[in-house]
Amino acid sequence: MKNKSFSNRGMFLENIINESNTYYNGIEKCLIFKKPTPVKVLNVTYPNNNSHLIDKAVYSSISTLDYNGIYREKYIEFDAKECHSKTSFPLSNIKNHQLLHIKSVIKQKGIVFLIIYMNNEFYLLKGNDIIEYINNSDKKSIGFEYIKEKGYKIKESYLPRLKYLDTVDEAYFKETV
Amino acid sequence: MKNKSFSNRGMFLENIINESNTYYNGIEKCLIFKKPTPVKVLNVTYPNNNSHLIDKAVYSSISTLDYNGIYREKYIEFDAKECHSKTSFPLSNIKNHQLLHIKSVIKQKGIVFLIIYMNNEFYLLKGNDIIEYINNSDKKSIGFEYIKEKGYKIKESYLPRLKYLDTVDEAYFKETV
Repeated sequence: MKNKSFSNRGMFLENIINESNTYYNGIEKCLIFKKPTPVKVLNVTYPNNNSHLIDKAVYSSISTLDYNGIYREKYIEFDAKECHSKTSFPLSNIKNHQLLHIKSVIKQKGIVFLIIYMNNEFYLLKGNDIIEYINNSDKKSIGFEYIKEKGYKIKESYLPRLKYLDTVDEAYFKETV
Repeated sequence: MKNKSFSNRGMFLENIINESNTYYNGIEKCLIFKKPTPVKVLNVTYPNNNSHLIDKAVYSSISTLDYNGIYREKYIEFDAKECHSKTSFPLSNIKNHQLLHIKSVIKQKGIVFLIIYMNNEFYLLKGNDIIEYINNSDKKSIGFEYIKEKGYKIKESYLPRLKYLDTVDEAYFKETV
């Protein structure tokens, strides 16, 4: 059911993050945006001189993560993943090109992580910890215990709905908080 | 001729920058990508269980610039503009939301600029210098003289085709070059 992935999957988490970013960007705490969903355009028609209509296109994929921007003068990039299993996070949720990209951001000394929604809780899991897990395990999923142990729990609030930048402070700027 | 803007305009410069980024990213000098062109999807059909087809969509616009990423541990964002006039760069090339976004990136202490192709030459013009020009002028365009004076000329080469990161060094990291 490939089409499902473009309709409902992840929309709850995506919406909550988008709302949080709108708030955070508005108070100038950061500047973080979701990248547009890539679409491969196959045909465009021009009904009249001043308009165009794409009448044939498909969703495609990008090699980066969905969100990026700047926070505390640092480059930041992350992706949002909803996990419906209560016990483990399937690694099939992370595409191979995304994994390579996470490694590349780490090499450039950027901040890179996943926000995982699992068991009605939100966790920030650092790119480093994901890579380390994969390098040291043959398993096809990350157990919830590992996420609870290595990840950072993100607090919810009214504004922003997800206080994930506080969690970024905790995970990456410990010495200055 | 709105449709023109999505076909030929700017494709020469865009291609040359994309090739340069492929090279730069490949040698791990930076990690900079063009954002996907945003498309507003109006209808999707599902010819069968395993595929989807967007049969009604239009191009839309984003409030950010086209390229962003990380270089020398700094957040970097820029846009590419081809100018066909030999004497002045029309400010109508910079949308109002892009101008606001340039100001926001400056506030967050990111690196932000335009790459302008004009008179067969490539220039990096800092976001700061664009804002300053607009704040101190009622003109609807930036004269080529101002671009030559305030901008930084970008050298061309075989690989990368546009050595714009050398120009970023010159414009933003003077003390360490």
